[in-house]
Amino acid sequence: MRPVKVGICGLGTVGGGTFNVLKRNAAEIARRAGRDIEVEQIAARHLNPACELGDTPVTEDVFALVDNPEIDIIVELIGGYGVARDVVMRAIANGKHVVTANKALIAVHGNEIFKAASEKGVMVAFEASVAGGIPIIKALREGLAANRINWVAGIINGTGNFILTEMRDKGRAFEDVLAEAQALGYAEADPAFDVEGIDAAHKLTILASIAFGIPLQFDKAYTEGITRLTTDDVNYAEALGYRIKHLGVARRTETGVELRVHPTLIPEDRLIANVNGVMNAVMVHGDAVGPTLYYGAGAGAEPTASAVVADIIDVVRTLTTDPNNRVPHLAFQANSLSDLPVLPVEQIETAYYLRLHAQDRPGVLAKVATILSERGINIESIVQMEAEEQDGLVPMILLTHEVIEQQMNDAIAAIEALEDIAGPVIRIRVEQLN
Amino acid sequence: MRPVKVGICGLGTVGGGTFNVLKRNAAEIARRAGRDIEVEQIAARHLNPACELGDTPVTEDVFALVDNPEIDIIVELIGGYGVARDVVMRAIANGKHVVTANKALIAVHGNEIFKAASEKGVMVAFEASVAGGIPIIKALREGLAANRINWVAGIINGTGNFILTEMRDKGRAFEDVLAEAQALGYAEADPAFDVEGIDAAHKLTILASIAFGIPLQFDKAYTEGITRLTTDDVNYAEALGYRIKHLGVARRTETGVELRVHPTLIPEDRLIANVNGVMNAVMVHGDAVGPTLYYGAGAGAEPTASAVVADIIDVVRTLTTDPNNRVPHLAFQANSLSDLPVLPVEQIETAYYLRLHAQDRPGVLAKVATILSERGINIESIVQMEAEEQDGLVPMILLTHEVIEQQMNDAIAAIEALEDIAGPVIRIRVEQLN
Repeated sequence: MRPVKVGICGLGTVGGGTFNVLKRNAAEIARRAGRDIEVEQIAARHLNPACELGDTPVTEDVFALVDNPEIDIIVELIGGYGVARDVVMRAIANGKHVVTANKALIAVHGNEIFKAASEKGVMVAFEASVAGGIPIIKALREGLAANRINWVAGIINGTGNFILTEMRDKGRAFEDVLAEAQALGYAEADPAFDVEGIDAAHKLTILASIAFGIPLQFDKAYTEGITRLTTDDVNYAEALGYRIKHLGVARRTETGVELRVHPTLIPEDRLIANVNGVMNAVMVHGDAVGPTLYYGAGAGAEPTASAVVADIIDVVRTLTTDPNNRVPHLAFQANSLSDLPVLPVEQIETAYYLRLHAQDRPGVLAKVATILSERGINIESIVQMEAEEQDGLVPMILLTHEVIEQQMNDAIAAIEALEDIAGPVIRIRVEQLN
Repeated sequence: MRPVKVGICGLGTVGGGTFNVLKRNAAEIARRAGRDIEVEQIAARHLNPACELGDTPVTEDVFALVDNPEIDIIVELIGGYGVARDVVMRAIANGKHVVTANKALIAVHGNEIFKAASEKGVMVAFEASVAGGIPIIKALREGLAANRINWVAGIINGTGNFILTEMRDKGRAFEDVLAEAQALGYAEADPAFDVEGIDAAHKLTILASIAFGIPLQFDKAYTEGITRLTTDDVNYAEALGYRIKHLGVARRTETGVELRVHPTLIPEDRLIANVNGVMNAVMVHGDAVGPTLYYGAGAGAEPTASAVVADIIDVVRTLTTDPNNRVPHLAFQANSLSDLPVLPVEQIETAYYLRLHAQDRPGVLAKVATILSERGINIESIVQMEAEEQDGLVPMILLTHEVIEQQMNDAIAAIEALEDIAGPVIRIRVEQLN
């Protein structure tokens, strides 16, 4: 059979990695795919010193590549919503298949993109958009297709996990580690995407759609960053047998879907609590399979290229299929997506870690316990830390059972109104993940 | 489209789970697959009290089911090499697709089965044959298809892992935990398949073929059980920062493929070292993606059914494909399998934990170190344990760097010949898995 011709748009980190993997492993890939896969053309404004391009043609005009009639598969590795979106939509209009690593584009414009692709009978593959080299889209969309998925929970931003790992292992402050991550090139120059959870929310939005068969709804995701985490909380959590991770959680309930990214206490004996540094991991809980976990590098040139190239091979396999009998973009047939709503954060149900600063005098604990009890909140444990603070204040740590967030909001407001409590109550959600 | 008709052969644990998952999740599965999947007939000698069969016809004649012209996909859940093999071969001859959970059948007769299937243009899917509900076949065969796979290492027998976990956590003896595992129904009545590593070797054989593109060669796998492990070694390993796991390791080297199942020391900070109880996990290291890990339930009715049903859905998708453009059974095109040999165990390269019982007098350590040094074996560390034994003997623990096993065999023979050393040298292989 004639080789399949690929056009790569963007020759940055992931684009360069994709070119290099396709070239280095060409023989191994052809042994699997049953035909050769060749890079026909590259669109890039700047060359990548990591790539020996040989006689592969390079154009600065990405739309010339998208319109190149020799190319079967357009690989979009530009990023962002601007040119990338135009490239993908024009490739689809041209009847070409698309592979992309662009989580922001899929999370925000995926519904429109998949609709156009289905109408043209082409595939838009996006394994690389979530958790880099971990084949989590494939696991969730195909490997666990027998299951009613109960929940998905993931460490899906490597920079955030690097920061939390350093804070725990070395007692370093958030700002200190963030500065190092930026120097190491892990974090974006504007770190908000990483540390405010926006990047993780993009990925979680995609996972939730595939898990539950709902349209992509990035605008409904609740996002809370790790910027206010202190080493005190990291240490208190540790003393209680927990690790703090920046987790994306999507859970199906009776009334809707929880879609939330926030710092989370996880019992230290859970495998995912031990995923450290820049590594990613995603747990998926299905009704038949129970809990499963997928771990690997969530970013970087070649790990991400691993997913891009796997998608290219998948697309090659579907070149001879009935478009109506392929794996649907969002795992479920487009005409059978569910209208299960994404719940506002006030309606999520979770357990909580609370840190209070209380006057060290009798009766405070009773008042706090009464406030919680009146709102149906069960206390799992209370630890009064040794008094170390000024002004007679002692830190008091509570772990609660699961409760609707609105109840907890009411309880916290009431606790903060107590005379014996100083300053705001620190609240971190707790997930058991079992 | 007309529903796809499935025939289930065997209604034991996995057969019952498969029927129940197909029934309970019928709507969710149809939303994914794009068409209904129905159980047309069941072949079983005994009914399963966990299943409400309703009006699903049951026959005691499994070949009547295999010959039923209404059935598109034969699901073989009988187990073993006898009837199961006849069922699979006759289903193929009838032009039917097959889904099986039978690792022994695939590991031992897979080459013949896949050849027949390819000639008839049908698929034989076997995700459930390795690590139960973990979609590891799919991850390795498709998700990591861009990679040159360097190695695979897995905890792929839940019973063995349960025993090792109990030995470590509770200091219990091997025989004691095995008896409990049998009482709990984890272990087979004849536990040799579990604790001697045969079951793990079946699964590893399958993983190695898919990873490296070699024919199935179960007869070449090196298999060492956990029956001789003592709590002493578990504790010494722990003191050195390692856990002992019963690991299947398949590694590609310059000269061939290592294919081996044996007790293994793993650094305690590796995720896989923290996989406990009956759970399974498989690590895959690819040249592009680096290390990855896949974790979940490796056995049980519904976890295994999760994989069986995912395979059924995969087969449904390929009903409209060109048979020459499907994912090959062993990941690589049948005409491009490699003749890279499976290495005899004497040629594998690994690091070692050695436990010696030495007379507590000067010079013993120097003699041992000299023996190792003369064979090019570097010592990573030596720990002389506190003398606790009779006859003036003290246990001495050595960790070595990597060396060819034959060199280590020679060294151990020389050490055992020393007058100062009593009894055999205990040797456990060590893998870093990074």
